[in-house]
Amino acid sequence: MATKGQPVYNVYPLTNYTFGNKQPKLEKDTSVQERLARLRSSYEQHGMRRSVEAVLVVQEHNTPHVLLLQLGLNHFKLPGGRLRPGEEEVEGLRRKLTNTLAPANPSLHITWDVGEVLGVFYRPNFDTVFYPYVPPHITRPKESRKLFVVQLPERCVFAVPKNMRLVAVPLFDLHDNLPRYGPVITALPAVLSRLRLNLQ
Amino acid sequence: MATKGQPVYNVYPLTNYTFGNKQPKLEKDTSVQERLARLRSSYEQHGMRRSVEAVLVVQEHNTPHVLLLQLGLNHFKLPGGRLRPGEEEVEGLRRKLTNTLAPANPSLHITWDVGEVLGVFYRPNFDTVFYPYVPPHITRPKESRKLFVVQLPERCVFAVPKNMRLVAVPLFDLHDNLPRYGPVITALPAVLSRLRLNLQ
Ligand SMILES: [Zn+2]
Ligand SMILES: [Zn+2]
Ligand SMILES: [Zn+2]
Ligand SMILES: [Zn+2]
Repeated sequence: MATKGQPVYNVYPLTNYTFGNKQPKLEKDTSVQERLARLRSSYEQHGMRRSVEAVLVVQEHNTPHVLLLQLGLNHFKLPGGRLRPGEEEVEGLRRKLTNTLAPANPSLHITWDVGEVLGVFYRPNFDTVFYPYVPPHITRPKESRKLFVVQLPERCVFAVPKNMRLVAVPLFDLHDNLPRYGPVITALPAVLSRLRLNLQ
Repeated sequence: MATKGQPVYNVYPLTNYTFGNKQPKLEKDTSVQERLARLRSSYEQHGMRRSVEAVLVVQEHNTPHVLLLQLGLNHFKLPGGRLRPGEEEVEGLRRKLTNTLAPANPSLHITWDVGEVLGVFYRPNFDTVFYPYVPPHITRPKESRKLFVVQLPERCVFAVPKNMRLVAVPLFDLHDNLPRYGPVITALPAVLSRLRLNLQ
């Protein structure tokens, strides 16, 4: 096992980025029940769902912030989503990021610089609970969520679907805030701590 | 930023290892007050304390477990400790591991295979609170604790100081168990989740 230095991530000011909006991107399901029913039927057809998500870091007043998509008042998620059956992870994450965050004008598109895996969370059952491991006696988790750090360029243009907001949340607000952000997002400060965040 | 696969960690059964004991290794301080007084005086002399700690993973009944040192009923810690002023991190961690866990007989010593940094936690003030980041407006944290994953060999002999126990705790017991294990150890399942744990 090779000792490696801490990977460096350059963190640029939020004000470097331009935020526009675009057509709403409606969620496929309108309730938790509907979402779980869809998970179950896709599991029967294709096996474990594979999701990939991006951790994008910016800074404000010299503090690292993570970019989250906010839906409504209380629903926060990382950009990303479900892979198609057989789809490669990094390609799939790029597709999802362009889909959700890139402007309509292709000349403003960037090639998403997908870096290391920061963590993997599992949904053992057909419910909404996730753990950073497969619990004992679970042989077939129903979903995996793999988090990749994505190095943002120094500047770029985002276009956010009109039914969502893109918010920058400081690490200290995510940390230890399970009720607001859930088990995956609240673990971001810990899983990011191995990186050397280079505030520009 | 290069995309890298998930590092592989080979996890061997707990029963592969032999556990003996050796002379007690007394802690330098007998109370939290004493410990904080020592931290303050070393900070005045040498600046921020640098600690390094090892995450050693074994398996029992096909579930990954982390090796922790237990002192008394309720005090758990990762093997490792404070670096000397100027001491290199990996060398210092190896010194600490040999000191705490190696048998007296040098022919039974191993070269500790120190791998990647899993996370870094900071103590912003002269108290017992740690965060996986430096909080805003803290310019000089008082201590950093850097966690390295250490690949165990397939078999080896440990000798544990008589005043401590070496315990193997499953990930599901560490997770979300802040009151028992504190903010660093309870984050281990999340920071380990990026590794591909290869259960042997
Ligand atoms: Zn939603
Ligand atoms: Zn802010
Ligand atoms: Zn102690
Ligand atoms: Zn066990």
